[in-house]
Amino acid sequence: MAVPTADLDSTVTDDAPEAYRGLMEQYRRISHLESGSGVLYWDQQVTMPEGGTAARGKQLAALSATTHEKLTSDAMADALDAAEDAGLGDERAANVREIRRRHERNRSVPESLVEELTEHRSHSQQVWKEAKADDDFAHFAPALETLRDLQVERAEAIAPDRPAYEVMYEDGEPYLPLERLEEIFEELKAGLVPLIEEIEASDADLASPFVAAGPSADDTQRGLSGAVLDLLNYPEDRGRLDVSAHPFTSGNQFDARITTRFKPEDPMDAFTATVHEFGHASYELGLPDDRFGEPLGASLSSGVHESQSRFWENHVARTEPFWEGFVGEANDHLGTDATAREAYEAVNQIYPDNLIRVEADELTYHLHIILRCEIDRALVEGDISVEEVPAVWNEKMDQYLGVTPDTDAEGCLQDIHWSGRFATFQGYTIGSVLAAQLDRAMREALGEDRVDALIHEGDLGPLWEWMTEHVHRHGRRYPTDELVEEATGEPLSAEYFLEYVEEKFGELYDR
Amino acid sequence: MAVPTADLDSTVTDDAPEAYRGLMEQYRRISHLESGSGVLYWDQQVTMPEGGTAARGKQLAALSATTHEKLTSDAMADALDAAEDAGLGDERAANVREIRRRHERNRSVPESLVEELTEHRSHSQQVWKEAKADDDFAHFAPALETLRDLQVERAEAIAPDRPAYEVMYEDGEPYLPLERLEEIFEELKAGLVPLIEEIEASDADLASPFVAAGPSADDTQRGLSGAVLDLLNYPEDRGRLDVSAHPFTSGNQFDARITTRFKPEDPMDAFTATVHEFGHASYELGLPDDRFGEPLGASLSSGVHESQSRFWENHVARTEPFWEGFVGEANDHLGTDATAREAYEAVNQIYPDNLIRVEADELTYHLHIILRCEIDRALVEGDISVEEVPAVWNEKMDQYLGVTPDTDAEGCLQDIHWSGRFATFQGYTIGSVLAAQLDRAMREALGEDRVDALIHEGDLGPLWEWMTEHVHRHGRRYPTDELVEEATGEPLSAEYFLEYVEEKFGELYDR
Repeated sequence: MAVPTADLDSTVTDDAPEAYRGLMEQYRRISHLESGSGVLYWDQQVTMPEGGTAARGKQLAALSATTHEKLTSDAMADALDAAEDAGLGDERAANVREIRRRHERNRSVPESLVEELTEHRSHSQQVWKEAKADDDFAHFAPALETLRDLQVERAEAIAPDRPAYEVMYEDGEPYLPLERLEEIFEELKAGLVPLIEEIEASDADLASPFVAAGPSADDTQRGLSGAVLDLLNYPEDRGRLDVSAHPFTSGNQFDARITTRFKPEDPMDAFTATVHEFGHASYELGLPDDRFGEPLGASLSSGVHESQSRFWENHVARTEPFWEGFVGEANDHLGTDATAREAYEAVNQIYPDNLIRVEADELTYHLHIILRCEIDRALVEGDISVEEVPAVWNEKMDQYLGVTPDTDAEGCLQDIHWSGRFATFQGYTIGSVLAAQLDRAMREALGEDRVDALIHEGDLGPLWEWMTEHVHRHGRRYPTDELVEEATGEPLSAEYFLEYVEEKFGELYDR
Repeated sequence: MAVPTADLDSTVTDDAPEAYRGLMEQYRRISHLESGSGVLYWDQQVTMPEGGTAARGKQLAALSATTHEKLTSDAMADALDAAEDAGLGDERAANVREIRRRHERNRSVPESLVEELTEHRSHSQQVWKEAKADDDFAHFAPALETLRDLQVERAEAIAPDRPAYEVMYEDGEPYLPLERLEEIFEELKAGLVPLIEEIEASDADLASPFVAAGPSADDTQRGLSGAVLDLLNYPEDRGRLDVSAHPFTSGNQFDARITTRFKPEDPMDAFTATVHEFGHASYELGLPDDRFGEPLGASLSSGVHESQSRFWENHVARTEPFWEGFVGEANDHLGTDATAREAYEAVNQIYPDNLIRVEADELTYHLHIILRCEIDRALVEGDISVEEVPAVWNEKMDQYLGVTPDTDAEGCLQDIHWSGRFATFQGYTIGSVLAAQLDRAMREALGEDRVDALIHEGDLGPLWEWMTEHVHRHGRRYPTDELVEEATGEPLSAEYFLEYVEEKFGELYDR
């Protein structure tokens, strides 16, 4: 199947106002340098030999310093002023609005700090990898402390009069006020905690046909990932699947790559990771080709990005109709004999005693997130020191999930995020919430039975097309709240997610 | 084994003149952006999905325009003037000399042309790949014509009063006058043509044990490449081996990657390609770590680079002592039963009827090069049109080698080079000539018998160390002629290469 792409005219046409063309010429170069950095980042995670770290740090630092220099230059300031006076239509004005936002956010950050931060992140990632492999938090601590100091310095340069954590949060989520997120967190806690308690008290014993079958070889699992990517219409000529320590997606509308990683004891782990990352890629691939390099051709926020991965992971690949259609293929690959119902149960087990975020179920996942956001914030605001992170982590794990990890590798060292940024984890929860709301809107538009039938039949093109039509093709045209309203008719709300999990897990766990 | 690196102090120390530090700060950023481009280029050849071409072209164009802008800026001109007045020592002065050369060469080239050229080369590479796969020169012709026009425009901007071909030649070979190259070509022709004729008339029938054993699987060949890379001390933490249509090396002292490609019918093809590319990587890895980003930490010219690949390919892996040591390992991998002498003969067969440059033997290879240089120059100087290339190619193949290809895929479409540049092929011949001269100097320094013994025993570290000491560690400190004199005590000469091939092939072909 061809990649779904929206059919829009480019905004930089010969008849566009000269001031606009001048601005976009400057901006597109910045944007292309940034997408070049993305390739270097992918390479560092997937293909680079270890010794390359020193050079990669320098390359990425030179790129970030250069884009920063261009984004904050007087030439850019002048071009923005001129473009804003040019009387532009809505789409072009949206491009200018986004460029203005980035210009303003960066102009008071010194270039030397940008360069230092980028270089430090490259170094820090390598140190994190080593520390995780050796279960050695002390090895990672100095890098984390430096990162915290540099990120706080950056946030204070951007907005000296506002809390650093909020400023960092807006890097990923520019259009959803932190207060609104906090309300959503409260709504979720109020709904999820009793639901998890009920499930823990339930006698239901969900099937585990894939784990029961014993270890699966990497090649077997790769075959299964390939099969589901075919079903999802992931285009071979615009993507690739690799293995990395931490699954991720990188790229743009022309080249959106995903990674996964294989756990021998549970093939559903890589399977759901692959579908999750496909969801991220589906967003990139749904951005309009002819807006490449413009804000209108780029993804909006990390929460919206995550809504796409969550939609495919949870609302497609964790549904009963999906397994009614796909279980035969899964059995063929894995040499198992699961029924559709057993497979459906297998991917929907709730494990409050799980330690690892990326392996968490749809309910406890958000407690893993809340824990991280709290530590994040306490670190940034100086309420805890870097040295205290492992102890605080273990304490909160015990408090929220009733388990504590035996090692930091399975605890506070498990995620790559703190080798680069703070205030990023909330994107996962926003994504789950928005995915449920989009799923509801899609089902209302296409028909509940039809969506189930399409998923059952593996005819997934119409679902991707709906998402492209309502989310992807807009790029950064609308702020998040407007996009959510455009797509679903309502502001972002936790209601649909809670409804969805209550219905699904209520049925699975016979409440 | 640890990677051999020279132990030099960095040139940008706190006590360096401020003018020098200012210049190097600007230049290192440029250099890091350029090495970032190198990663994007590697990715395009090795890992990028096809659809990514459009985006990659934009990314590389933005990078080249940005480095061009910085290299030719007024700030750079001022920094150069100031550094030149600062009374620097030899090493720092060499850095400044090299930066000055690049600044002067680029300052009259318009940035838009640089951007256009880079983007066109990305496009052109993709078209070349398709045209080669489909044996369709007409598909490639328009891209080649545009490239020619753009490259001529660039050469005329650099030096309007000098022949465009000479200006292009100096991109890769700044310090070896084109006239000197022409003399070397004449010496070679005078020596090689009669030698090839004698070999064609010889009754000798060299052994082909590896071809005789039938097709080898890719995995088998990869195993053999891995084994020889281990023997060569290619460091896993600073390199990697991949497969690409055209074998190449990419990287720097921290991350020097090589590629190869497997022909089922002849495992020695990939084997020698792997050793050849290792030779390129050995140069990068031998550059001083602490000069990364400075001219003193970069390779000197394409001819010198090629001398390193040729040294390892021909003067190590095509010698009898090498096969006396390695034939057992090769037999184990390939399931063959060759003797050392048979293996030595197998990798030294002369095939005047071979059509493909990268598969050519050590003698006819240079006729392939001369043919390309002649077409190159005729194209650039307008003596032939793009449409005439296939016919002229076939005519010259017949004239020099007595064979003509049946398809353009095996003819003028075989090499990637014309999708990017002209006047590059001579580097291969300069490399062979210099490799023989360096081999002679090394053997005089270390002792003929000792070098043979080291190669026999697979104890190759001392050879790499000698090359690092005499070539690699200098980076661009000396112009080519000075480097050759430093390393060998004499100017570049075809004499040693001719002596070497006459002795070797005289013995092999019982002349």
